[in-house]
Amino acid sequence: MRVEIVAIGTELLLGQIADTNAQWLGEQLAANGIASHFHQHVGDNHERIIAALRVAMSRSDAIITCGGLGPTQDDITRAALADLMGVELVEQPELVSVIREMFTGRGREMPENNLLQAQVPVGAAVIPQNRGTAPGLICPVGQHTFYAVPGVPYEMQEMFERAILPDLLAKAQANGERAVIKSRVLRTWGAAESRLAEVLAERFVDLENNPRITLAFLASGIEGIKIRITARGTDEANAAALIAEEESRVREIVESTCGDVFFGVDDETMEYAIAKLLIERGETLAVAESLTGGLIASRLVNVSGASNWFRGGVVSYASEVKFDVLNVPVGPVVSGDAAEAMAKGVRELLKSDIAISITGVAGPEEQDGQPVGTVFVGIAIGVSLTHVQLRVPGDRQRVRNYAAIGALNALRQHFGG
Amino acid sequence: MRVEIVAIGTELLLGQIADTNAQWLGEQLAANGIASHFHQHVGDNHERIIAALRVAMSRSDAIITCGGLGPTQDDITRAALADLMGVELVEQPELVSVIREMFTGRGREMPENNLLQAQVPVGAAVIPQNRGTAPGLICPVGQHTFYAVPGVPYEMQEMFERAILPDLLAKAQANGERAVIKSRVLRTWGAAESRLAEVLAERFVDLENNPRITLAFLASGIEGIKIRITARGTDEANAAALIAEEESRVREIVESTCGDVFFGVDDETMEYAIAKLLIERGETLAVAESLTGGLIASRLVNVSGASNWFRGGVVSYASEVKFDVLNVPVGPVVSGDAAEAMAKGVRELLKSDIAISITGVAGPEEQDGQPVGTVFVGIAIGVSLTHVQLRVPGDRQRVRNYAAIGALNALRQHFGG
Repeated sequence: MRVEIVAIGTELLLGQIADTNAQWLGEQLAANGIASHFHQHVGDNHERIIAALRVAMSRSDAIITCGGLGPTQDDITRAALADLMGVELVEQPELVSVIREMFTGRGREMPENNLLQAQVPVGAAVIPQNRGTAPGLICPVGQHTFYAVPGVPYEMQEMFERAILPDLLAKAQANGERAVIKSRVLRTWGAAESRLAEVLAERFVDLENNPRITLAFLASGIEGIKIRITARGTDEANAAALIAEEESRVREIVESTCGDVFFGVDDETMEYAIAKLLIERGETLAVAESLTGGLIASRLVNVSGASNWFRGGVVSYASEVKFDVLNVPVGPVVSGDAAEAMAKGVRELLKSDIAISITGVAGPEEQDGQPVGTVFVGIAIGVSLTHVQLRVPGDRQRVRNYAAIGALNALRQHFGG
Repeated sequence: MRVEIVAIGTELLLGQIADTNAQWLGEQLAANGIASHFHQHVGDNHERIIAALRVAMSRSDAIITCGGLGPTQDDITRAALADLMGVELVEQPELVSVIREMFTGRGREMPENNLLQAQVPVGAAVIPQNRGTAPGLICPVGQHTFYAVPGVPYEMQEMFERAILPDLLAKAQANGERAVIKSRVLRTWGAAESRLAEVLAERFVDLENNPRITLAFLASGIEGIKIRITARGTDEANAAALIAEEESRVREIVESTCGDVFFGVDDETMEYAIAKLLIERGETLAVAESLTGGLIASRLVNVSGASNWFRGGVVSYASEVKFDVLNVPVGPVVSGDAAEAMAKGVRELLKSDIAISITGVAGPEEQDGQPVGTVFVGIAIGVSLTHVQLRVPGDRQRVRNYAAIGALNALRQHFGG
């Protein structure tokens, strides 16, 4: 059972909206063990919709179309499906009453345009609407099934869960195809994607013909490299066990060569890792930032409950602010000593248990004889001071983003977490 | 000239990321008058990539593929294109040196896997990388052209603008298809999209059958609403004149009913508007942030040359930091008085000419009897103090982002800029 998603709407082609429907449906299908190998976007054009649907039929068993079921002139999915089925569109009196009642219920008169939404291709089944006015359709075409749902995510999702997913699962079950698919994402920071690939190359080869476990890398820009483990299990427990086994294998392989690079799983961010460590230790944090200009602090406050452990920070962008407010000795400000003095200064000023600081060169020019991308992170744990030096790549904006997550990672590694 | 976008990556099918590349490219192509009728997503599978590319060839003239150019085993776009061209992949020594140097420059050794990225199908042209390691490719296949770019948005966008768009425009010009298309984006903050649509409704109707000028709204989330003016001119000068005329008309209509909502054009951000005003006035700025946790400061340092006018800031997340460091009188911290005291405190501590401060309720719970979304912005111009109250919508993260840009806008409007 292979399902293709065809999102219909010129606004998608013009980039006026992102196709979050395909994303949501893709996630649901994968979670339910249903294969989906292709997605398409096509505009509100009769011939091109039919062309896209024919392509989908040539390579998939079932097709979910999103959009084009509204009440306006450019909502033409119904007509395209009728053409593909080789049948007429017929107005269904029961649908007319339902739609009319929706308007009456809101104290409004139904515009005549909405009658379009009561038209159904002969032989199609209706998916009643629970949230809007456009009904969905289930249209058989030979061995293929088309499911047409509205493009409004809130309406689409409800119809998918209520009517489409059960139908797909029943079909897959009848074919004896169904597995339970689970995945888990391991998040790393500090190792290049190519380095991780090299380290895991042998494991990738071992898994090549294994239908149960798949590994993949997801590059997430400044948020590090993610390693995704996907398992096809016979049931929930089996899939979970496969994941757990593969996870410990991957961690062992990577940690033995790349060191402490795993900072979280799935949706856990670097700041979440820091929050966990601080809560465990029962300590508070303050930050002093130069080149990152507040980015580290703004990441930390994203963690819910940050007020329990985050005191605040000083953005010491001008050198005099470092000297006057943080008591950094007058001199070069891009150095390990300056970073340590900043951490000490902000810890004392904001009365926290722990402090980190960051100073460095975002570019475009070098500073204090240091090249662009040089970053010093100061760490104050009580009165004890230390610093770490980082080298980060990219232009001004990226140097800054990498430096911010890199500094948090330095604190995490310092704690051994 | 019809361009199809094929985004490659199993993570798209599984819904682990949304395809924002197709959205961005769609917007760029439309703005340049280049037709794009179909998009596809396909996973990291050799046969299926080739199948998707063949479908694209059957209905489009040029194809942009995004993704699958990384250094790992599942990056197979290069091999698929070589197969489609019927040629071999050959390692290019110049690319090897370039990639090796990128690693050396960061003080790291190049993992052998990265050599994959130096492989080029015979007959393909290389688009050099300016931002990462994976070069792009231009591959002719009969009358069709394939442009392969990395899936990392930041790398993809730079390559598109530098190498692909000029090539597409030259081809369109050669086909005699092309008028000179120019567009200009007017950026607004503070008026809802539906309000702007209402105000401009009559102008939209007037333009309906005008082939020369198009108006469109682009919603940019927290960055406000953009009004895009697109002109099809007979030449550069004509297109520029059409834009200028429409711009003054739109500004007049909007400003007469919605007030001072325009803060910039095209890529000009709110912080850029603030920078311009401060440079004009020859004054320096400091910020004190509570709920935004450093977001305002981190926006300000994005402006190149910020060190000329930005002193720094204090993130006073804990109330005691407000009392002890900024001399805010002990008491409720979500109020206009507290905001003014914060602005005064940070201006004195950081010795700036001007200061802004922000305090408010990001949620999830109310604070000091104020509901979620209540925000006070304090403004200190020398010793004179004032404050502005804002109400911003959304969850914790959105409240914070809206509050940050809203505070900068409050300062802009205070200056009458």
